[in-house]
Amino acid sequence: MPELIQPTDDDARALARGLIDTARFGALAVHEAGTGLPMVTRVAVGTTPEGQPVTLVSGLSHHTKALELDTACSLLIGEPGDKGDPLTHPRLTLMAKARFLRHGDTDRDALAAHYLQSHPKSKLYIDFPDFCFVKFEVDKAYLNGGFARAFVLGPQDLGL
Amino acid sequence: MPELIQPTDDDARALARGLIDTARFGALAVHEAGTGLPMVTRVAVGTTPEGQPVTLVSGLSHHTKALELDTACSLLIGEPGDKGDPLTHPRLTLMAKARFLRHGDTDRDALAAHYLQSHPKSKLYIDFPDFCFVKFEVDKAYLNGGFARAFVLGPQDLGL
Repeated sequence: MPELIQPTDDDARALARGLIDTARFGALAVHEAGTGLPMVTRVAVGTTPEGQPVTLVSGLSHHTKALELDTACSLLIGEPGDKGDPLTHPRLTLMAKARFLRHGDTDRDALAAHYLQSHPKSKLYIDFPDFCFVKFEVDKAYLNGGFARAFVLGPQDLGL
Repeated sequence: MPELIQPTDDDARALARGLIDTARFGALAVHEAGTGLPMVTRVAVGTTPEGQPVTLVSGLSHHTKALELDTACSLLIGEPGDKGDPLTHPRLTLMAKARFLRHGDTDRDALAAHYLQSHPKSKLYIDFPDFCFVKFEVDKAYLNGGFARAFVLGPQDLGL
């Protein structure tokens, strides 16, 4: 992401919002439990009915244990295709805090029903007792629309 | 990555090595400059002639500035296809330290020639003065071969 940040416009907002709405998976960065080192792993990505980005994770996984200790995280979405230079494909880095939504919590079942529409294969494990949702409360977003097309967005630019 | 780590075997080593050898891009986690927060961005990924993972970055980018202040980083490689559950696709999390290789450094030109073979489109910017290589010196790797197929590998398992 070049430092030459462009002024945020409606095209940038729509591009970022579209990346969130169409994401099926992404890369999650956390502070690793125990070491505090940066650690990045793959996670599924969907949205809440209100459009907030969310993932479904196992409590047994490294990233979940990390987020339980330190909710600061970052989520990269926007996947390149198989062709062309991957760095010309738009992508969005969300700077966020993780908020857990577990079995029994208000809105968990509504979120599960919504999530299954975009992730039908997750029905195999969505109700496992160790699985929970993590909602991403976005503080800031870095949008890279390709070389020299960098923007810094706030939650309001994403409709959050 | 479930905590139920399996014993490392040659299949796991070959899978991990194959993910490194075929990666064209990945997700890089760093401590953001200024805030220290986890930040994940997309980077191109190739290898040195010796098989060490490497990226080519602009000195103007957020992640490069972050690595100049703190070399601790993590690289996720192994991209899901367009179909199926992305979480069943194998992926590799490298826990690493960044080592810069800049214009004029020994081996930079040999690396550039090697890198261009796998990333021909980078010839448009590889010689820009602000671009440099970052080699990943791997301390540890977390291999996830799909549900319940988790391994922890050392550099020697990756031929590094």
